[in-house]
Amino acid sequence: VPAALIALDWGTTEARAWLLDAAGDVRERAEAPLGIMKVQGGAFADALCSLAGGWLDAEPGIPILASGMIGSRQGWVEAPYVPCPAGAADLAGRLAEAPGPGGRAVRIVPGVSFDPPEGVPDVMRGEETQIVGVPGAGRRLFVLPGTHSKWAEVEDGRIVRFRSFMTGEVFAVLSRHSILGRLMEGEEEDEGAFAEGLARGSAQRPGDGGLLAKLFGVRTLGLFGRLPGSAAASYLSGLLIGCEVAEGIAAFGAGATRVEVVGGARLSHLYGRALTAAGLEPRLHGEEAAARGLWAIAKAAGVL
Amino acid sequence: VPAALIALDWGTTEARAWLLDAAGDVRERAEAPLGIMKVQGGAFADALCSLAGGWLDAEPGIPILASGMIGSRQGWVEAPYVPCPAGAADLAGRLAEAPGPGGRAVRIVPGVSFDPPEGVPDVMRGEETQIVGVPGAGRRLFVLPGTHSKWAEVEDGRIVRFRSFMTGEVFAVLSRHSILGRLMEGEEEDEGAFAEGLARGSAQRPGDGGLLAKLFGVRTLGLFGRLPGSAAASYLSGLLIGCEVAEGIAAFGAGATRVEVVGGARLSHLYGRALTAAGLEPRLHGEEAAARGLWAIAKAAGVL
Repeated sequence: VPAALIALDWGTTEARAWLLDAAGDVRERAEAPLGIMKVQGGAFADALCSLAGGWLDAEPGIPILASGMIGSRQGWVEAPYVPCPAGAADLAGRLAEAPGPGGRAVRIVPGVSFDPPEGVPDVMRGEETQIVGVPGAGRRLFVLPGTHSKWAEVEDGRIVRFRSFMTGEVFAVLSRHSILGRLMEGEEEDEGAFAEGLARGSAQRPGDGGLLAKLFGVRTLGLFGRLPGSAAASYLSGLLIGCEVAEGIAAFGAGATRVEVVGGARLSHLYGRALTAAGLEPRLHGEEAAARGLWAIAKAAGVL
Repeated sequence: VPAALIALDWGTTEARAWLLDAAGDVRERAEAPLGIMKVQGGAFADALCSLAGGWLDAEPGIPILASGMIGSRQGWVEAPYVPCPAGAADLAGRLAEAPGPGGRAVRIVPGVSFDPPEGVPDVMRGEETQIVGVPGAGRRLFVLPGTHSKWAEVEDGRIVRFRSFMTGEVFAVLSRHSILGRLMEGEEEDEGAFAEGLARGSAQRPGDGGLLAKLFGVRTLGLFGRLPGSAAASYLSGLLIGCEVAEGIAAFGAGATRVEVVGGARLSHLYGRALTAAGLEPRLHGEEAAARGLWAIAKAAGVL
């Protein structure tokens, strides 16, 4: 089967690439710490060569399609957000184009925006491609864990609405810069403490207060000798993920049983536990969902 | 009226002192950045001399009473937490004693703990004295804004239960270390943005998600040109205080109309607005509530 597409998931810190064959299967993969924040002076064509130069030379005729922060204002060429509802065809109709190595076009998938009347707008970039890479019909619920994790409602392959949760970044800044971080010892995961955090984070007993009160509990449980320093990070992680899952289910869970979870292995595992504890049936997908999404968008764009 | 008590509110970063006369009125006051984290090598007696040396010399016979972090394990002498319910008499019965300048005793007020069955424990140190300094009968609701603000239910002068909210510290770490801080320009207060944040932070529409989702909105509102960088800090402050007030009312608000607010002028003003917007009647008290509380505890201890 001949090679047919160079597919790129090009984010803030990392860039991943796949060489797909004419059946849409992955023939080779590559990865480098060449996210847009790491590329100096707009040298994206050079970065692409160092990531996938061998494929570019060997397959001079096949198209190149990228998604992620590479299409943001800070990226290579801006691919403005497409409003919801958005699926593969909507994204394919709005590809941007950057001047790649040797004058070859690099097509870039736009992000998606959600801007409800009287509400707060939201955006995603990269996740829309992962969602499109998990095919299915009818109404489906997606959770994409990460620094700013996304919950999305998808109807017949089109993203209808979504919300970002700052869970990952809140965990990071509290661990590094708050009084809670000073209690933490080591980075080992503690399953029991994570489960306890999950239960407390998702519980909604008014007398306990909400997240702002529960966070302080990380400190007082330590002070009372009920949470060792080695378990504090796992407890905080559980608390925040449990809170996000409760918020996400309130916003998106109506009628859902199955949830499509797309993300890195470690985070997806933790979210899977949280979603299962909340009574949902998570189905985990790796980040190669991006490769399948890029394939679907390339097909819809007619560039294959 | 002769001098009768040297009263100290001795916290983590600041120390405040009052010279009270035999009627309990403030005759003089002093303040210095001599909180326990600023005093090296346990030299608390020296710090006290530099804060209130003139009074110590002029009034060799009057008692000295301190509250706050000075009674913590990291302070001068540990004054172990007194469990709820706790009022002036309970605190007075458990004073610790430190060796002050010239062999004079410095009495230290204990903190208060709340440890509900099946719940997460909580602690305060310093706030109990401020609460005791706002006299009143029956059931009363207190809010004490700060880095870790406290909501407390008080019954006939005794603290029955309370909760800490990490609001102030979450604001600080997100402003300094997260992607939200990178959007902020200047420190000027923006009344309109604060009010908008308050409304969004306290609103409970499931489709919006909870706090973790609302935080991301600080970024997307900026991205969409609906929140200028100069207003971002005020909006975030409103969002967090609005969320705390909603959580606090759910936990403590049943049947309450009046709220006693004790804290610094700036924060008390902001919390006052938030509580009013939530339909409560805040009554603001300055930090000299600590002086009145120390007076009440000294009286209950029979040391005057």
